[in-house]
Amino acid sequence: MSTRRPSIQDLYPEDVAHCYGCGRSNPHGHQLKSFVEGDEVVAHFTPGPDYSSLPGFVYGGLLASLVDCHAMATAAAAELGGAVAGSEVSGSAVAPRYVTGALRVDYLKPTPLGVELEIRGRVKEQSERKKVVELTVSAAGTLTVRAEAVAVRMPKSMEQPPQKT
Amino acid sequence: MSTRRPSIQDLYPEDVAHCYGCGRSNPHGHQLKSFVEGDEVVAHFTPGPDYSSLPGFVYGGLLASLVDCHAMATAAAAELGGAVAGSEVSGSAVAPRYVTGALRVDYLKPTPLGVELEIRGRVKEQSERKKVVELTVSAAGTLTVRAEAVAVRMPKSMEQPPQKT
Repeated sequence: MSTRRPSIQDLYPEDVAHCYGCGRSNPHGHQLKSFVEGDEVVAHFTPGPDYSSLPGFVYGGLLASLVDCHAMATAAAAELGGAVAGSEVSGSAVAPRYVTGALRVDYLKPTPLGVELEIRGRVKEQSERKKVVELTVSAAGTLTVRAEAVAVRMPKSMEQPPQKT
Repeated sequence: MSTRRPSIQDLYPEDVAHCYGCGRSNPHGHQLKSFVEGDEVVAHFTPGPDYSSLPGFVYGGLLASLVDCHAMATAAAAELGGAVAGSEVSGSAVAPRYVTGALRVDYLKPTPLGVELEIRGRVKEQSERKKVVELTVSAAGTLTVRAEAVAVRMPKSMEQPPQKT
């Protein structure tokens, strides 16, 4: 029996696990996996060679996408609290689904392609339905991006797909 | 002989036309095309069904990516000025390449999947090397996203791919 710690995204309910950035049920997406590590949440991701902006550098849109999904996982982890802290993650926990209210990304320096990125998130302010998450991206140990996201508990209006008009 | 107006991205030099979001030379990317329309720059894009966040809604990372690339095209258009104004676009103009210094995206309401999005950009502040661009995304006529990007002229350090260490 595996004792591998589940990622936050592994704990999303099946009907909301199709996100292009981090849904385990989206075979064409990035499938980002975010893990609790102390009071931070950490993910690792190595962009494929197509994800360039200028030759040799990572496309800023991908960096925005990764911090966005990672921020929602960080917010979910904060709500779960003890259930996912340290090594005491329960694979039977269900992670709440947050959506992005606002995202701010500061590209401090170009991010090189071809190395593993480390994305770290930390909740800096929280209420029951809203979390403000600060994030960093590092490439081979060099900080290249700082970001901040406002994560909001998924509203009722998003529980069903919109009606086509 | 075609008289079709080129997009801003059609005017990027070949060696910097591989961006995942908007490079005409990246066959796996989104190939966003941005066109000057009066004092604004406009693009249309219909996300494929994989680009979901929650079922039926567009993934926020894609929206951030689209406004990011569109902002760089808007900045380039502003620098080109008359060369791309109205219908007087010259296919022989070369568009300068900007990179993103900072990006702020406000998700005003969920963006439905399956409809064409309209992305509009407008330079609100500019200097020789830096432009601040404000942007909107609308889905079937409904405003869903507001964004602002700081576009910076591509630095010398990005003219060559980074050296592997």
